[in-house]
Amino acid sequence: MAAGRASGAELARVLLRPRSVALVGVSDDAAKPAARPLRYLRQAGFAGAVYPINPRRGTVQGERAWPSLAVLPEVPEHVFVMTATEHVLDTLRECERLGVKVATVLAGGFSEAGPEGVAREEAVRAFARTSSLRLVGPASLGVAHPGSGLLLTANAAFAERELPPGKVFVASHSGSMLGALLSRGKARGVGFAGMVSVGVEADLSLGEICSATLDDPEIDSYLLFLESLRRGADLQRFAREAARRGKPVIAYKLGRSQAAAEMATTHTGALAGEDDVADAFLRGLGVARVGVLEALLEAPALARRIPLGATGAARPPRVGIVTTTGGGAAMVVDQLGIRGIVVEPPSPATLARLAAANLPATPGRVLDVTLAGAKYEIMRQLLAILLDAPEFDLVVTVVGSSARFQPELAVKPVIDTACTATRPLAAMLVPDAPQALAELTAHGVPCFRSPEACADAIAAVLQRRSPAVPAAATQPARDEAAFISEADAYGLLEKLDVPHAPVVKMPLAEPPRALPFAFPVVAKVCDERIPHKTEVGGVVLDIRDEDGLHAAFETLRRNLAERAPGIECRDVLVQTMRSGLMEALVGYRVDPDAGPLVMLAAGGVWTEVARDRALRLAPVTVEAAREMIAEVKAFRTLAGLRGRPRGDLDALARAVSALSQLALQPQLGVVEAEVNPLMVMKEGAGVLAVDALVLRRRP
Amino acid sequence: MAAGRASGAELARVLLRPRSVALVGVSDDAAKPAARPLRYLRQAGFAGAVYPINPRRGTVQGERAWPSLAVLPEVPEHVFVMTATEHVLDTLRECERLGVKVATVLAGGFSEAGPEGVAREEAVRAFARTSSLRLVGPASLGVAHPGSGLLLTANAAFAERELPPGKVFVASHSGSMLGALLSRGKARGVGFAGMVSVGVEADLSLGEICSATLDDPEIDSYLLFLESLRRGADLQRFAREAARRGKPVIAYKLGRSQAAAEMATTHTGALAGEDDVADAFLRGLGVARVGVLEALLEAPALARRIPLGATGAARPPRVGIVTTTGGGAAMVVDQLGIRGIVVEPPSPATLARLAAANLPATPGRVLDVTLAGAKYEIMRQLLAILLDAPEFDLVVTVVGSSARFQPELAVKPVIDTACTATRPLAAMLVPDAPQALAELTAHGVPCFRSPEACADAIAAVLQRRSPAVPAAATQPARDEAAFISEADAYGLLEKLDVPHAPVVKMPLAEPPRALPFAFPVVAKVCDERIPHKTEVGGVVLDIRDEDGLHAAFETLRRNLAERAPGIECRDVLVQTMRSGLMEALVGYRVDPDAGPLVMLAAGGVWTEVARDRALRLAPVTVEAAREMIAEVKAFRTLAGLRGRPRGDLDALARAVSALSQLALQPQLGVVEAEVNPLMVMKEGAGVLAVDALVLRRRP
Repeated sequence: MAAGRASGAELARVLLRPRSVALVGVSDDAAKPAARPLRYLRQAGFAGAVYPINPRRGTVQGERAWPSLAVLPEVPEHVFVMTATEHVLDTLRECERLGVKVATVLAGGFSEAGPEGVAREEAVRAFARTSSLRLVGPASLGVAHPGSGLLLTANAAFAERELPPGKVFVASHSGSMLGALLSRGKARGVGFAGMVSVGVEADLSLGEICSATLDDPEIDSYLLFLESLRRGADLQRFAREAARRGKPVIAYKLGRSQAAAEMATTHTGALAGEDDVADAFLRGLGVARVGVLEALLEAPALARRIPLGATGAARPPRVGIVTTTGGGAAMVVDQLGIRGIVVEPPSPATLARLAAANLPATPGRVLDVTLAGAKYEIMRQLLAILLDAPEFDLVVTVVGSSARFQPELAVKPVIDTACTATRPLAAMLVPDAPQALAELTAHGVPCFRSPEACADAIAAVLQRRSPAVPAAATQPARDEAAFISEADAYGLLEKLDVPHAPVVKMPLAEPPRALPFAFPVVAKVCDERIPHKTEVGGVVLDIRDEDGLHAAFETLRRNLAERAPGIECRDVLVQTMRSGLMEALVGYRVDPDAGPLVMLAAGGVWTEVARDRALRLAPVTVEAAREMIAEVKAFRTLAGLRGRPRGDLDALARAVSALSQLALQPQLGVVEAEVNPLMVMKEGAGVLAVDALVLRRRP
Repeated sequence: MAAGRASGAELARVLLRPRSVALVGVSDDAAKPAARPLRYLRQAGFAGAVYPINPRRGTVQGERAWPSLAVLPEVPEHVFVMTATEHVLDTLRECERLGVKVATVLAGGFSEAGPEGVAREEAVRAFARTSSLRLVGPASLGVAHPGSGLLLTANAAFAERELPPGKVFVASHSGSMLGALLSRGKARGVGFAGMVSVGVEADLSLGEICSATLDDPEIDSYLLFLESLRRGADLQRFAREAARRGKPVIAYKLGRSQAAAEMATTHTGALAGEDDVADAFLRGLGVARVGVLEALLEAPALARRIPLGATGAARPPRVGIVTTTGGGAAMVVDQLGIRGIVVEPPSPATLARLAAANLPATPGRVLDVTLAGAKYEIMRQLLAILLDAPEFDLVVTVVGSSARFQPELAVKPVIDTACTATRPLAAMLVPDAPQALAELTAHGVPCFRSPEACADAIAAVLQRRSPAVPAAATQPARDEAAFISEADAYGLLEKLDVPHAPVVKMPLAEPPRALPFAFPVVAKVCDERIPHKTEVGGVVLDIRDEDGLHAAFETLRRNLAERAPGIECRDVLVQTMRSGLMEALVGYRVDPDAGPLVMLAAGGVWTEVARDRALRLAPVTVEAAREMIAEVKAFRTLAGLRGRPRGDLDALARAVSALSQLALQPQLGVVEAEVNPLMVMKEGAGVLAVDALVLRRRP
């Protein structure tokens, strides 16, 4: 890495608060996008030096223009490169030569534009790897720090005036979404401490950029707009550090529906690139993933009030609702329920306190004050009691029509209570009530304008977990890996304490030896070159006696000779044939984007058609493995449903956790391990692997 | 039914456009809700006669007040009753005596308020059944017809001024939601031709009220806010007639999440009150059910452009997208995908036409004009070509930041194109752009402010089907029904042409006779008093020969003597033991709310844990039954997945349709019929019922 390369707080400073900027390729034609940054900087009153660079003009937009970066009176700290695609690399080289700290590159036409573009992008990446210059983009729509008037962007949306102040930092794979968030934020009084369109991440990744800003006291939360999971390791470092510092991270990620479309055809073994991998990744790092666009803007205020890990699996989050509109509250209850959050009714003790104070104390899931009439004093007293009640992690006030015309009745008491309360209080406004929303936002009260965004933000924030133990930093690479034999796979499982059915290895060429365990047994060819044994007729099931075993060896020899003639397989595995109450599939995999993952599903065809599986970043604790079991619907049949025998779900949880520990042992070189099936026996009788396939880096 | 009872257009007129109204219990105290209707009527300039009734005051709000209805100079056509709960019935009796056509009752305190309230409500219902007076409520927040200034409501939200005109009629179970829709509609330029809070529907149901307005030329679409499915028969009549007249009906129904919560415990046989019953009901009637509140307001403009039945199962709907923002379009594609709508890329022919016209012709799912730049003329030409392309049922333009500051670039061409196009064109605006939304709405162009509402409305509208053949109007009642024996159930299946495994009935007390079919067989006790045979040990499986059959009879006699000593069971059914590729569960049921339904699920424990089932209003055609099969994930394993044998899904579809024909044969008296399991054999080999349970009205 080159000397003098900006990083950390220094990188954040030159990115967001440079003392000087140069605009290479700035246009004098006000209609052109390349004219915008200069206009924006002046409109917003950026206080640093601004150097328009244009070799063909002495002035641009009435200002002195400079013919090149080299002739400037100083080295600009941040250069916005708006030149044509083919000149980008030359400009970057000049930036590097002059000692510029960071450049943001607007031009597209890289890897998305065919083979020539791919070559161009590779050249930029190669340059960036060794350069002292740091790079945002290419294909970045720019960088903005509204607080200092740094609007280094060609995005038409930044013509916006009177931006509200704010402490939210936005990083986005999509440039145009910055504009949407800017205007939608302004409409809601949500302002931004910084916005970066990261482009193709040829050098600086979204995670690196966010990490660099973590020391910035003006930033208290992060919004990420993700198209896919890329540069996952950087994202992971950022998210873990943000969690440590208590700065919430909220993400909106595209790609939910691809997973749905692939549902019918994808084999569960193939994890990469699927949406639930991204979901496991984000959840595993304490990131609140929202699914409703508006919730992205509404969630930070809520997340600021609810520390990461305050609620979670051990104690499901408990939301209380008070309302002036039955129908409105019912929508919120319904939307929360869809997302797995059950609204908690006030406890008898709380109802008694309300009744004693002559306040509405209606029975039912929601405290409905409609009949009593929402009045300031009533609401104040009632909210004080609810926020004092131990049964709620969050109280939501769902306000009806009064929010529009008489905010003093139910909105003002929420503001006055929330500002002094130690517990979180939020508001959902059922009518169109922009003034009341603005008032709530200005006072930092989490507030929502639709039942869907309300429930989405609440579920995403309350269901966050503190990041668990990370996997080892360096993991074996996939492209150097090969399968090992089933016998060796059992050796690995033994090291990890994952139980398997008793097994004995024998030479295929000889008659079978006496068995150390009872019939019935299974005989399987054992060779790392034959990972999919059934495809070559390499498995004989249900062998009941010695004659059967002899016959089975004969069958295996014949099948191999016919169907795998090139492979001289030496060994046979003979294994106790055990059946359990149910077959599970437990998988481990080093995903190129997300890192080590562990997956649990029910075995059999159901997993293929119903996508009934749970995924987590590995390693997982036994406790986390129990949550995974609870997520897989098929395992409910082992939990004592309708008089059925209970399965040994404790042993299953231990096995899942044990396999996931591979993530801490990169020296074992395992890239992928699938135990399929793992037989789940009845309660107390454990689990047993009866087949396993392991992909390991070649020694 | 009493003579002179208003119905149809006459009812709609006195409800929405009465020549005279009386306000019983109107208040002089401006702070009280009972003061509002008079204020609203005057503010809105209602042109008819208004009679404030207040026995204690000569004037109310500066107007002459009358001591009672009886002393008025004329009989008011519509009376708004705001008296206390206990005086409601007296007031209604007076209305009836005077010949009032319709009364709307505000007071609550009926069935929701304990035993006394239940008795009060029953008294009101009893009165209404025989009265010439029609009744909205009780617990109705009122009736509004903004066009004529009839704001007969105590809802604070109607203080709203300058309501936009509109042709949408709203009927709601929740009174407070009217206010929310009113203000949200105003913010979007959506106005209403009428709004009714239907209260507890003691007399007029939501369906009846909507039906009465169907002749009104000022109403072109309906929005329903439903808390539950009640008065289903009226709702069904209304929806069918609205479909016939081409007036779209959009519904938002609460209760999605209850279903989710009950998922783990509910047996699939119990259909009533569950959300998917309501879903099957609404879909079966051509109602577009939205799940996002904002979509309720946005859907009518779209539904007006897309006739019911224009798209559907036979031809999945095809949506094309053109965009000025990649990220924004990706959100819409994603949200549509989640809802089962796959965005269609432009065809090669369309791309060629675009290219020939020198217009952007990017490959991929979405036509992205970002690079070319959105300009009026470019967009006009491009939209003309897309709307001419045969591959799209709907074209959606996703507009980025320009929608806010430069609507002439991409919004105006949408308006100018949509107004003259024969095919539907919609717009989704990614930034906050209220002016552009208002402009689009004013021109009748379907438009959306969030990707979720956009996708939700599009999916709900495009997935509508024309209502199928209705069930018979009168159906057997549940409370008079009893089980019939399995043998009789097979008799019924034979009548319906649902195949069952060969069976022979023998006396239990005698030794078994020779069988007309081969072993293995099953022996089952056969008695209508023992519907759940396994619970008394009444089934012996896998009988391989005559000795086994003798032994089985002996076992059955012993088990019955022990476990069902009170029942003298005479018969045994001996049945061929057949196993198929998979077990299906096919159910039929007359639901008290929804009417006859048919249900299809996979047999076994999966149905219990995964709620993997399809429901429809009965009867269904074979074609509709095929769609049901496609909905049940488990049956994908019978469609040739990964080399597995195909199941006879054609025969399954025929059996589902055949069972559902019970809905057309009420004379058979069947309230519920469950074939479980129906064995699905391999392709060409049919299906076979091997057990059936039928609940039939006693003769």
